Amino acid sequence: MGYHEWKSCIDACLQCAAICNHCASSCTKEEDVKMMASCIELDMQCASMCYAAAQLMSLGSSEAKELCRICAKICDACGTECGKHNTEHCEECAEACLHCAEECRKMAA
Amino acid sequence: MGYHEWKSCIDACLQCAAICNHCASSCTKEEDVKMMASCIELDMQCASMCYAAAQLMSLGSSEAKELCRICAKICDACGTECGKHNTEHCEECAEACLHCAEECRKMAA
Amino acid sequence: MGYHEWKSCIDACLQCAAICNHCASSCTKEEDVKMMASCIELDMQCASMCYAAAQLMSLGSSEAKELCRICAKICDACGTECGKHNTEHCEECAEACLHCAEECRKMAA
Amino acid sequence: MGYHEWKSCIDACLQCAAICNHCASSCTKEEDVKMMASCIELDMQCASMCYAAAQLMSLGSSEAKELCRICAKICDACGTECGKHNTEHCEECAEACLHCAEECRKMAA
Repeated sequence: MGYHEWKSCIDACLQCAAICNHCASSCTKEEDVKMMASCIELDMQCASMCYAAAQLMSLGSSEAKELCRICAKICDACGTECGKHNTEHCEECAEACLHCAEECRKMAA
Repeated sequence: MGYHEWKSCIDACLQCAAICNHCASSCTKEEDVKMMASCIELDMQCASMCYAAAQLMSLGSSEAKELCRICAKICDACGTECGKHNTEHCEECAEACLHCAEECRKMAA
Repeated sequence: MGYHEWKSCIDACLQCAAICNHCASSCTKEEDVKMMASCIELDMQCASMCYAAAQLMSLGSSEAKELCRICAKICDACGTECGKHNTEHCEECAEACLHCAEECRKMAA
Repeated sequence: MGYHEWKSCIDACLQCAAICNHCASSCTKEEDVKMMASCIELDMQCASMCYAAAQLMSLGSSEAKELCRICAKICDACGTECGKHNTEHCEECAEACLHCAEECRKMAA
């Protein structure tokens, strides 16, 4: 098992990492930054976690599933927080996080 | 300028990073590993560089173009090396690297 | 040239990356988050850039110096912004950024 | 809990990540690369995992301990493999991996 079998989860993680970076950066430019504080914090954790999961999967690691199990939890938390805000970046981030959480749960199963 | 305008280059970088990781890992399992030594080395550098470029682009950094200029050089070197080998992982890696180099040159222009 | 010759710059980059992560996370918990917005944004860019430079140096890449040249610029920007705030995390981040910028300029020379 | 309380584990992870990159790159230049194949593969996984753990710790994530638990396993595997080889880079990598595994186990406890 490795890169090709895990491709849809790798892609979901990489997309989610990039969107989380974009969301965090966009949040710092919002009028009410304080309202976005938890969102920024979870975006940063989620971006790091998603990239780590993508790396271990693309390297074919035997620990990839374990990483994905944790990644699903962080994606859920980030997606839930982003889902509370009406900005475009939070909406697309919430969608990417929840899709990634789903892919990661399938991987971890 | 940021995430949405740079999306095709971000995607190319993320795909290239994942494929380079997969190629490096696969190279270590080839019968003749010595023949793959330069390929492994460049894959590792290319994966790191591509992910860095994707991160700075997705964060909307003013240095993103500079990163892409360097990334194009490393992608070219890695793609050229991978292009010398007939394994499936090297072939798909060469293609991803050369596509990413092209996207990065457009970004850096 | 590689890991051992570049060790002090690699260490400065890794320390700076970790402190930038810590500073960004701490900034989101400050009473006046809006005042910290630029700091968070530059911390995220600086953490990514410093880690990328550390990776390319530890891999012995021929592009390591180029990365360090860009890294010095981002570290200077981040250190200057952090230097405007009196919080402990910004003060230690400013110090780490300016030290890293100096190490990166020596590398790039 | 966060950056300052976890500093010795963060440092161990960052040092280990850099040394694993150096070891992987150095292994590709050895006369008998085939003998180093597993070492290269585990170095790549260990570098990615250690950096991920360092990031989540420096961001103060509630999942940091879980990451460290997995990181300890990968560090043990990599350190054991490196310990089989007499090259300088493998020896220093084995030492860094086993120290990092120990720090990560303390974190995860």
